[in-house]
Amino acid sequence: MGIIVNVFLYSLPYVLSLVVGIVVAEVWNKRKSPFHPEKKHLIPRKETDDEHDLQQGKLEACDPGGDDKGDEDDDDSAFNLHEGEHIPFRMKYNFTEKEMVERSERFYKEMNDRRSVRFFSDKPVPLKVIENIVKTAGTSPSGAHTEPWTFSVVRNQAVKMKVREIIEEEEKINYDKRMGDKWLNDLKHIGTTYKKPYLSKCSTLIIIFKQVHSFNEDGEKKTHYYHEISTSISVGLMLAAIQNAGLVTCTTTPMNAGPRLRKLLGRQPYEKVLLLLPVGYAADNATVPDLHRKPLEKIMDLHDQIEE
Amino acid sequence: MGIIVNVFLYSLPYVLSLVVGIVVAEVWNKRKSPFHPEKKHLIPRKETDDEHDLQQGKLEACDPGGDDKGDEDDDDSAFNLHEGEHIPFRMKYNFTEKEMVERSERFYKEMNDRRSVRFFSDKPVPLKVIENIVKTAGTSPSGAHTEPWTFSVVRNQAVKMKVREIIEEEEKINYDKRMGDKWLNDLKHIGTTYKKPYLSKCSTLIIIFKQVHSFNEDGEKKTHYYHEISTSISVGLMLAAIQNAGLVTCTTTPMNAGPRLRKLLGRQPYEKVLLLLPVGYAADNATVPDLHRKPLEKIMDLHDQIEE
Repeated sequence: MGIIVNVFLYSLPYVLSLVVGIVVAEVWNKRKSPFHPEKKHLIPRKETDDEHDLQQGKLEACDPGGDDKGDEDDDDSAFNLHEGEHIPFRMKYNFTEKEMVERSERFYKEMNDRRSVRFFSDKPVPLKVIENIVKTAGTSPSGAHTEPWTFSVVRNQAVKMKVREIIEEEEKINYDKRMGDKWLNDLKHIGTTYKKPYLSKCSTLIIIFKQVHSFNEDGEKKTHYYHEISTSISVGLMLAAIQNAGLVTCTTTPMNAGPRLRKLLGRQPYEKVLLLLPVGYAADNATVPDLHRKPLEKIMDLHDQIEE
Repeated sequence: MGIIVNVFLYSLPYVLSLVVGIVVAEVWNKRKSPFHPEKKHLIPRKETDDEHDLQQGKLEACDPGGDDKGDEDDDDSAFNLHEGEHIPFRMKYNFTEKEMVERSERFYKEMNDRRSVRFFSDKPVPLKVIENIVKTAGTSPSGAHTEPWTFSVVRNQAVKMKVREIIEEEEKINYDKRMGDKWLNDLKHIGTTYKKPYLSKCSTLIIIFKQVHSFNEDGEKKTHYYHEISTSISVGLMLAAIQNAGLVTCTTTPMNAGPRLRKLLGRQPYEKVLLLLPVGYAADNATVPDLHRKPLEKIMDLHDQIEE
């Protein structure tokens, strides 16, 4: 018994120091944690089912902007700090119910014809059309009307080649080193490789940057709430505009190539590559995977007029 | 001197224990970190300028799906595991350059007329129109064609009231307890409150859920890569469809109300509220903030034909 007590007594200070060390490290980690108001961009996305609901309240309570959960340009909520004066609004269009049904049907059908295509013709696209497509994306709503997007439009053949080189180099590393065995095995039967010839063949590349923040005129850092959701919504409008113009694209993520693309295009450190869209005419021999879309009843959950 | 050496020697074991404690805590934190393959949904978004570029490679190397960086439905990349057979693709539309310029100009102008409006008339909107709007959102591309979205459409007055109650209750807590002093002070001159009468007045609420994963027919968990970016892009298409139909909406985030809304609408735990769109006709006396959009040269960075 005596020896156990002695060992216990002798080791106690060390154990206590160890505990103090753990506590110090934990406190330090808490301080480093994104819940500090200055660190809103670090708020992690806890997304497991079990944790999400519990976390959501906590995260949002600390900072609504960090965990991209939504987007508005003039919502009632607290993000709406730059709203200013209101002016009267009148909808320009006044369609009958019949017209609305017809228009919405026609628009759906047009958009439903869109497919992600990665076989492009090298036929040039007028710059004016690309400008209108970018302007359309720029009509998107954004958190606190920060408009946190930059669209780099690459039409210069040498720069397109450079973009392709960067992406293929990174993809090669992804294939050779970064992907696990299971992943590579899954890919085998598809036969995809790291090569992306369409990146230099298509008329125009649009590289979409989200601005994680910006600076106001006084050089002060301006928070961009919901920058990723806002920029993604703007890409939805861009896809609609591309389809409307009779062109094709393929929504892609330049995996691991973001920083190099940012430097190539001379963008700011606070601008991060979100997506890359090759835009142009489809090649004559273009093919697409034989995919189908979920029917309405699989994506719409209706709580209709009938009282429950 | 002697006393300093003695103090040093005596304290050394404690200091060492303390260091061991810190190291243990750090190692433990690393183990808890999202870089473990099983924890892809926990991958934090490190978004500070200094850290992002360094992190990006690491994050993506570990798991491309965790840190939502992009989206594609049939990209060359590794997400494209469900591609299957290719079939020929031919663009339905074959516009002349002049037609393209005109169409893209017209579409831009139509979309540029969109404003986020939160003053609604209670005039009902035909269900068929809402269905077409949801179907249009469903044409969006998505990571590995997972279509990770659910659109809850609420037109029942009692359910609309319940949604409004939940959101107002949470907003009241946001205002009373969750917001800091600076934030409340910033809000004072705007005069916003937690009340959202438009939520029960508008014809239709569309609550947008992102599915963080799903289950396949065998009950196996199916990863949804880039679910948030994909769902946000679908909302961009939805906004275009709403505008095209001559209706208005206001892109909002139901802050802290997600879990309760999910339960109210009977959705699955893996479906998370991303955004909420009230949809309907604008009120006759609707107003909007006097906001303007950035001009093209502020959002487009052109690398044109001229060789550099």
